[in-house]
Amino acid sequence: MRQRHKPWADDFIQEHKDIFITNAADSKLDWTAVFGNSNPVHLEIGTGKGQFITGMARQYPHVNFVGIELAKSIIVSAGQKVIEAEQANVRLVLGDAAGISRLFDKDEVAAIYLNFSDPWPKNRHEKRRLTYHAFLEQYENILSGGGELVLKTDNSGLFAYSLVSFSQYGMTLKNVSLDLHAENDLTNVPTEYEQKFAAKGQPIYRCKAVFQGK
Amino acid sequence: MRQRHKPWADDFIQEHKDIFITNAADSKLDWTAVFGNSNPVHLEIGTGKGQFITGMARQYPHVNFVGIELAKSIIVSAGQKVIEAEQANVRLVLGDAAGISRLFDKDEVAAIYLNFSDPWPKNRHEKRRLTYHAFLEQYENILSGGGELVLKTDNSGLFAYSLVSFSQYGMTLKNVSLDLHAENDLTNVPTEYEQKFAAKGQPIYRCKAVFQGK
Repeated sequence: MRQRHKPWADDFIQEHKDIFITNAADSKLDWTAVFGNSNPVHLEIGTGKGQFITGMARQYPHVNFVGIELAKSIIVSAGQKVIEAEQANVRLVLGDAAGISRLFDKDEVAAIYLNFSDPWPKNRHEKRRLTYHAFLEQYENILSGGGELVLKTDNSGLFAYSLVSFSQYGMTLKNVSLDLHAENDLTNVPTEYEQKFAAKGQPIYRCKAVFQGK
Repeated sequence: MRQRHKPWADDFIQEHKDIFITNAADSKLDWTAVFGNSNPVHLEIGTGKGQFITGMARQYPHVNFVGIELAKSIIVSAGQKVIEAEQANVRLVLGDAAGISRLFDKDEVAAIYLNFSDPWPKNRHEKRRLTYHAFLEQYENILSGGGELVLKTDNSGLFAYSLVSFSQYGMTLKNVSLDLHAENDLTNVPTEYEQKFAAKGQPIYRCKAVFQGK
């Protein structure tokens, strides 16, 4: 995603500690205390500019949404959307996907969303793909019983890789769509990127998978 | 597939009993005796006009190929190709996919191909799709250890359905392609239909799956 340097980002994050989680690495958070309720927690890894997470938060007011994003200059855009919409059920974490095991307890997350993750097409970068088995292990650990991993992408290589990776990890596919926008799913919340891409008539792939015995 | 009535089809089949299996329903066949060797047997369900099976038979001379096709007027076209190419490693069965358990013993087949099967898009016809779980049970029974089920289709609905069906049956995906012709797989043998369809730039989907514990 295109990043523009935003010199005000640090100050903005400091001023909005009600939305941005900046001390995630220090100790495990009590998400019930953070949100002020014990609603289910859904996690988006790679929140980007926040159109998905804020759209989901509006659609599901009784779900708490946590978004993780690595890029400071991008996560502040998501923060601006949360503030404008006055959404109490969203929190944003500046950080890395590898850190989710520090953020959540076992079985603490009810759903995980991977939206248009970096496909890392070269074989030697397989380990960086967010559907590589080492990441699946982390997702399995924090997802609660029946909790879904939902993958959405326009990248056929990443999608094909992920289906095989899920299957070989022993996950079960609940749902696969090879052209999401043709299906007219009214509950689908598009990301910024998805909107632009789908407008060109390109297919968007989505699948929902669960861990066995979960 | 388009069918033209061929009044000579019956006679043609009777004249070529070396290629066409017409007594399959009577008793289980001894495929080693039929082919005169004990090479592995691969099965194509819905052989159509035979471009795939004859292409595969040429590519893999040490594999025996059995093709099943329901339509008499179509299977004779496949027969003509086999005769022209003088292929000793192909046999054609006029019959129904539901009959494969009568054709093969347990673990007798090394691979099964489903090429451009009828998608039966209506929900009420789900049971007719060749990747419905009742068919998977039959495939599991006749496939030998590590034997692959290979599905190729241009129909996104059938492909998505099949991935979920395989997964929920407990099968493991070995390989998924969402645009087979873009991958330039030189071992791919296209069907007649596939050739026409891919020429329009439409994606061809393929996956290879195995049964657990096989």
